[in-house]
Amino acid sequence: MGEIEMIDIQEQIEKHLQELSKYTSTPNKGTTRLTYSQEDLGARTYIKEKMYEYGLKVHEDGFGNIFGKMEGALQDAPSVLIGSHFDSVPHGGNYDGPAGVVAGLVVAELFSKNQLIPKYPLEIIALVEEEGTRFGGGLMGSRGIVGLLSEQDFYRLKDKDGISTVEAMEKIGLDPSLPKRRDSKTMKAYLELHIEQGPILEEKKIPIGVVETIVGLTQLEITVDGQAGHAGTTPMEHRADALVTSAKIIAELPTIATEEGEGSVITVGSVEVFPNGANVIPKKTVFSVDIRSGKEEHVQNMIRKVKELVYSHNQNNIRLSIEQLLYMQPKSMNPEIITLLKQKSSELDIPYYSMNSGAGHDAMVFSDFTAVGMLFVPSKNGLSHCPEEWSDSRDLANAVQILYEAAKNLTEVEVK
Amino acid sequence: MGEIEMIDIQEQIEKHLQELSKYTSTPNKGTTRLTYSQEDLGARTYIKEKMYEYGLKVHEDGFGNIFGKMEGALQDAPSVLIGSHFDSVPHGGNYDGPAGVVAGLVVAELFSKNQLIPKYPLEIIALVEEEGTRFGGGLMGSRGIVGLLSEQDFYRLKDKDGISTVEAMEKIGLDPSLPKRRDSKTMKAYLELHIEQGPILEEKKIPIGVVETIVGLTQLEITVDGQAGHAGTTPMEHRADALVTSAKIIAELPTIATEEGEGSVITVGSVEVFPNGANVIPKKTVFSVDIRSGKEEHVQNMIRKVKELVYSHNQNNIRLSIEQLLYMQPKSMNPEIITLLKQKSSELDIPYYSMNSGAGHDAMVFSDFTAVGMLFVPSKNGLSHCPEEWSDSRDLANAVQILYEAAKNLTEVEVK
Repeated sequence: MGEIEMIDIQEQIEKHLQELSKYTSTPNKGTTRLTYSQEDLGARTYIKEKMYEYGLKVHEDGFGNIFGKMEGALQDAPSVLIGSHFDSVPHGGNYDGPAGVVAGLVVAELFSKNQLIPKYPLEIIALVEEEGTRFGGGLMGSRGIVGLLSEQDFYRLKDKDGISTVEAMEKIGLDPSLPKRRDSKTMKAYLELHIEQGPILEEKKIPIGVVETIVGLTQLEITVDGQAGHAGTTPMEHRADALVTSAKIIAELPTIATEEGEGSVITVGSVEVFPNGANVIPKKTVFSVDIRSGKEEHVQNMIRKVKELVYSHNQNNIRLSIEQLLYMQPKSMNPEIITLLKQKSSELDIPYYSMNSGAGHDAMVFSDFTAVGMLFVPSKNGLSHCPEEWSDSRDLANAVQILYEAAKNLTEVEVK
Repeated sequence: MGEIEMIDIQEQIEKHLQELSKYTSTPNKGTTRLTYSQEDLGARTYIKEKMYEYGLKVHEDGFGNIFGKMEGALQDAPSVLIGSHFDSVPHGGNYDGPAGVVAGLVVAELFSKNQLIPKYPLEIIALVEEEGTRFGGGLMGSRGIVGLLSEQDFYRLKDKDGISTVEAMEKIGLDPSLPKRRDSKTMKAYLELHIEQGPILEEKKIPIGVVETIVGLTQLEITVDGQAGHAGTTPMEHRADALVTSAKIIAELPTIATEEGEGSVITVGSVEVFPNGANVIPKKTVFSVDIRSGKEEHVQNMIRKVKELVYSHNQNNIRLSIEQLLYMQPKSMNPEIITLLKQKSSELDIPYYSMNSGAGHDAMVFSDFTAVGMLFVPSKNGLSHCPEEWSDSRDLANAVQILYEAAKNLTEVEVK
């Protein structure tokens, strides 16, 4: 392990994260870095400079995704990709996304400083618009690369001010006419480090999570139609109160998730009440139901039970309807990559925990096109998407060491 | 009863209601008649013209309330008041308020056409801003008359555009410097006809309700503080979901009202969820609880039970708090007036039903200052505060006959 000591990994991670954190449109109020903004340009310039510094061949694609490639000994061989995204939610933290990009940069620096010669290329990537904050939907950069977002659909996207992707790209000097989709044959593997964004690792006091599955997810929208009425003049037995019916349903949903078990979750995050006046019986409510589980069977069971529960409240004057807004299957990480990551953790004496990811990630998109693996590090108090988001740089340094060893293996670096 | 046939009561009621319904700022979308608006001026002019036509002495006070007085044989004797308000909610109906004003006009016409000479003055009144639509709070005209709204407080009131009461009054030619408060010694009784705004009379197929009590009312605001979290990454057992806790409470509240019985009601009309995003566990909710009953004991019991229920949900990471925004005692109508109204109904062979009013009315305000009685007529489908608001003019004509007979008694008209 002597080679690793040539740089102080933890110090490098902290430096990169600190530099990238400067590119926010909301200083002192968290990181707000919208895709193709001036803050994107600032962070982009920093990332590219570091890639050049570590001897990588740098290019951007027609989405503005950044690639820094260390060529391998084999001609036209597929790359081992390491990276994540560098955009943020509004008033987010410094770790969600950048931690994974920084990990890639430090792995490249280690390859460079140790003059490693890989057989397969090592490619550090920094992706745009994972959060969907500016153009909606999310996972835009990765979906574009694998062809799940067509060029035409990409051109049609606009932000809330009506600015198109092309206009926004050109404003910071990016070229939307560059190649976009990438053949899956050019990818040997994709490794991503991300903060957990939940409390599990912190609670278990384990510094590394090896992701087995990114959860499947469905989002339902429930509409309850009742009858409005005066709060004072409508007797209880005459009411068709849309909110009381909704409350009965919302109160029961956690039990469905708990009974399903294995980390299944159900969340009602959003409720709208009409007309929402203190002295008017609600005539209508609309609420979201977010259902997630690592096993598709669990997702399906929960959807069925939620539907049964909802429709069981259909009565004379109360009508309920359900719309499915989103359905995504669980995505398993590659078993060989999982084994490799665990093996390298063990060799480095770093305890790890096998877990699912409850949030979506770019790794989810790549998983149908190449061999994907993901590492998590603990999030302080489980917080994310807020200025308080924080992860320990020692945990990040552990993760970088694992990624470095795994990358050496996957790129088939010649052992000295 | 030969004298009554001199005019067609039902026809007069329909004519007045139709004329007043023309003064709306939302034609074909219900009645919207804000206090001191051009529509107020139009309705006001019509009401005053009719008062003049029936030989009444007309004046307005410093709030713009309209009074039409038929002097009695006694010097300086207190008046028997009959009336209601003539403002509306936005997109309301043609009956809530005007029905009671029109009833007063028709009673005055009957006195006039029959050349009755009362001992005590008969005074028809048309009140402003009962709904509180423009200046908030409600019951403004009646509260002003009895001195529950001070001159200073009245001057400070502004509408949502920042226009003060004085500015608005002067814009339609009213004089805010006119006398405002009225000595309770000038009032012998106050009679008000109003639509029920609920389903009870229609359901019981009884054309007249004699109000015993206007319900006591309290409004609570419940705040639930939990912890936000990612919908995907926060296990069910780690959650402090403010919305799930709120839903459990809201689902239980109807039982408290039903168990209390005697027409007690509890309504949650308004809920705000923070941050209200589909994939974020709600960190905070604020909801209203409106509690009403004809007996103060019931209101107190329900407040106690609601507080017990709410505080029973205080847990590690969920904190609940309750603020009491409003408390109004039930107001009993005058027993002798109630007896008189029932006696006159019986004499006229009009079936009546003793009931409480679930809504507040100007009669509530007058009840601490003079002898008050109230009649209800059925509301079609129990609807009110909407364009569909409708009451049968035959029912209104019945009510006017009862009021006419009661007014003859209270003003001590000499029997021919």
